[in-house]
Amino acid sequence: MAQIKPRTLSGFMELLPHRQAQFDRMVEILRRTYSLYGFTGLDTPLIEASEVLLAKGGGETEKQIYRFTKGDTDLSLRFDLTVPLAKYVALHAGELSFPFRRFQIGKVYRGERAQRGRFREFYQADIDVIGDGKLDIVNEAEIPAIIYKAFTTLGLRRFQIRVNNRKVLNGLFALLGLEAHAGDVMRTIDKLEKIGPDKVLGILTEDFGVAPDTGRQLLDLLGTENPMEALAAYKGKHELLDQGISELETVVGYLSAFGVPADHFKVDLTIARGLDYYTGTVYETAMLDHPEIGSICSGGRYDNLAEYYTNKQLPGVGISIGLTRLFYVLEEQKYLNEDLLTAPADALILPMTEDLSPAVSLATVLREAGIRTQLYTENKKFKQKIGYADKLGIPYVIFLGEDEIAQGKAAVKDMTTGEQLTQTTAEAIVRIRDGLAARSTGTPIQDRG
Amino acid sequence: MAQIKPRTLSGFMELLPHRQAQFDRMVEILRRTYSLYGFTGLDTPLIEASEVLLAKGGGETEKQIYRFTKGDTDLSLRFDLTVPLAKYVALHAGELSFPFRRFQIGKVYRGERAQRGRFREFYQADIDVIGDGKLDIVNEAEIPAIIYKAFTTLGLRRFQIRVNNRKVLNGLFALLGLEAHAGDVMRTIDKLEKIGPDKVLGILTEDFGVAPDTGRQLLDLLGTENPMEALAAYKGKHELLDQGISELETVVGYLSAFGVPADHFKVDLTIARGLDYYTGTVYETAMLDHPEIGSICSGGRYDNLAEYYTNKQLPGVGISIGLTRLFYVLEEQKYLNEDLLTAPADALILPMTEDLSPAVSLATVLREAGIRTQLYTENKKFKQKIGYADKLGIPYVIFLGEDEIAQGKAAVKDMTTGEQLTQTTAEAIVRIRDGLAARSTGTPIQDRG
Repeated sequence: MAQIKPRTLSGFMELLPHRQAQFDRMVEILRRTYSLYGFTGLDTPLIEASEVLLAKGGGETEKQIYRFTKGDTDLSLRFDLTVPLAKYVALHAGELSFPFRRFQIGKVYRGERAQRGRFREFYQADIDVIGDGKLDIVNEAEIPAIIYKAFTTLGLRRFQIRVNNRKVLNGLFALLGLEAHAGDVMRTIDKLEKIGPDKVLGILTEDFGVAPDTGRQLLDLLGTENPMEALAAYKGKHELLDQGISELETVVGYLSAFGVPADHFKVDLTIARGLDYYTGTVYETAMLDHPEIGSICSGGRYDNLAEYYTNKQLPGVGISIGLTRLFYVLEEQKYLNEDLLTAPADALILPMTEDLSPAVSLATVLREAGIRTQLYTENKKFKQKIGYADKLGIPYVIFLGEDEIAQGKAAVKDMTTGEQLTQTTAEAIVRIRDGLAARSTGTPIQDRG
Repeated sequence: MAQIKPRTLSGFMELLPHRQAQFDRMVEILRRTYSLYGFTGLDTPLIEASEVLLAKGGGETEKQIYRFTKGDTDLSLRFDLTVPLAKYVALHAGELSFPFRRFQIGKVYRGERAQRGRFREFYQADIDVIGDGKLDIVNEAEIPAIIYKAFTTLGLRRFQIRVNNRKVLNGLFALLGLEAHAGDVMRTIDKLEKIGPDKVLGILTEDFGVAPDTGRQLLDLLGTENPMEALAAYKGKHELLDQGISELETVVGYLSAFGVPADHFKVDLTIARGLDYYTGTVYETAMLDHPEIGSICSGGRYDNLAEYYTNKQLPGVGISIGLTRLFYVLEEQKYLNEDLLTAPADALILPMTEDLSPAVSLATVLREAGIRTQLYTENKKFKQKIGYADKLGIPYVIFLGEDEIAQGKAAVKDMTTGEQLTQTTAEAIVRIRDGLAARSTGTPIQDRG
């Protein structure tokens, strides 16, 4: 038969089973954390009509979009979870209750240039709170607090959530007479961490005609170690700036109230975020020991989620974890906790008799006790059967022969210690459960920093 | 601003939050059930290279495939989870342990003609066991036993798993001299339930030159009430048929051993399955009160999972639930249990003071106790706040005013009974947990049949 060489597309993450188990455990923790804060899970289509998905039009993303026709229909794969959310809320507004708190963990598609650690299919894990007309600023502090909780539950320690406010930046731009170029200046500022202040200054002065002194003043202010103190000197000079400073103060105050320790967040006036639609608080999150990775979780406040679909004003605040990339980095940097179980089963039963009924009964009882159990019925040598459990990392192997069946017991081997005991089912359940509990105390991420 | 009318593509299921919660609960049960039987969860890309995905080529599915180019690459969206599994196993065989037991619950794409209850994007929930060279027949009984367990855990009662064996059919065809048309006859037989025996006989005799007597004999045998008894008369006449009968007997025997009650499975010789690659046991599953729906879970045994990719012989057995369609039918036929909680939160805290700290602290403690808690901080009238909880079906509302805070208590209202008690946090946790437990005893499906 003519064969095709099997392959997975470049830029598409496909994990081996033990890695997949680690990934899934992280997703499960995010899901549970988001749920604990009262977010409802959504699952929107991966394909949307192009005219709907690209209603906003233009932008850098458009080139990256997977767009195609099927029959007469112009279709696109979603490139983020925000536009589908906007569509969903605009479409179903009458049936939703506001504030609408939703999480979505799903794949998105961007045809980026293939390179190590860049993915064309990747998971985003988003939370957003959408208001109807208004949305209290408390939400702008709760969102990063949820991310703090999510990351620490995953086991990440050395991270910092960086907070800024677009009104502060736009206020400063106005005050310095840069209003006409606000968008360009914002996008240039956004590159500060990547290209450094000298190059940013160069772009500001050469491309946008900013006076060198003004540019330097701006960059000094943005780069200051004590931004709240530095901003205090600017109070009362511009309305939008005042509003921004006040919002920033409020968010910082609530962040503490929400239990985010001082060393896990910081006001950073250089955080701009490229996207136009942010209007207030903006966030980025850095891994302190790996600044080269860039932000692992970003977002912000916006005033109009769905202006391309509806006249309804839908302000919101949201944040997104780039999960596939984060997982890739965690694996590469050896942050994944390899001690947690990733085997497909907790117990492997090896029936030693022709009649499988006792083995099936035992498997049923174990499963009812929540122990993931596999019956091994292949006709293989004993050594191969044990090797199977060993290679998969299945922690318990249970031998069931005539003798054990006659005694109403089973021979249960702890594959880690090698200890083999002949036990009743009840005894085996207790032992296996205790063993599993001891092996699942750790977090998926081990941050030794 | 120019607006685009928001819409979701026809044939794409997009659920409102309470329906999504019901769907997700079903997925969670399937995931847990599959895991309890020692299956590892996989998540392969939705996009594959067309030459890989369509290696097998031809077939009715090809027209339905979402195929497009990006740059120079010819891409296709997966139309099932079996071909990606074949690719995965062929590609990673050296790193997997066999038998390889995997489940995958994911979206697949078929551009079918749009009609009610037909979906272009839909979930399949698959389990497969893949052997390396050989695979014991016990697996062919365990697979439907897992499906029995999964459906009953979901709450479905009036269903029946129908079992046949391709070797029985092919043996019979050979014995009746229909070998040359075996494939055509098989596909015609597969339409029996849809078009009835008369039309099938017509096709067999007119299109494939089957003698009317032979055709009638075949249809009588296939349609018999006591297939095992009827088959007994054919024993010893043809090797393949004998092998098929023996396998069928073995599978039926083990099905009972695996705990599937006699009224939940049946040998049905008319089950053929359209796909060519099945070679032994085949399954379909009928909802007894809704035969018009067709099979809700189908699969079978195959000898060569990945012959298009590798010379390695990889026999397997698998089964697939068409989850989106099943959910659609369950909703339409009012099988969904509307008593289970679908609210995004278990408790809504309404802070009555300017200082949110006591409310935040309370929320933190409740969340640590596993209670999904939302802080409501919007500036709305009291009635609107209560209305919010009411509309979402949030079961407990907690008022936290100066008085309660001074007492170290909170006013906790059970929204179902209306009972409001001023309680300590510990008391509230016990009460809420008990209330939630009482409301989550049911299954997602209520099968009154």
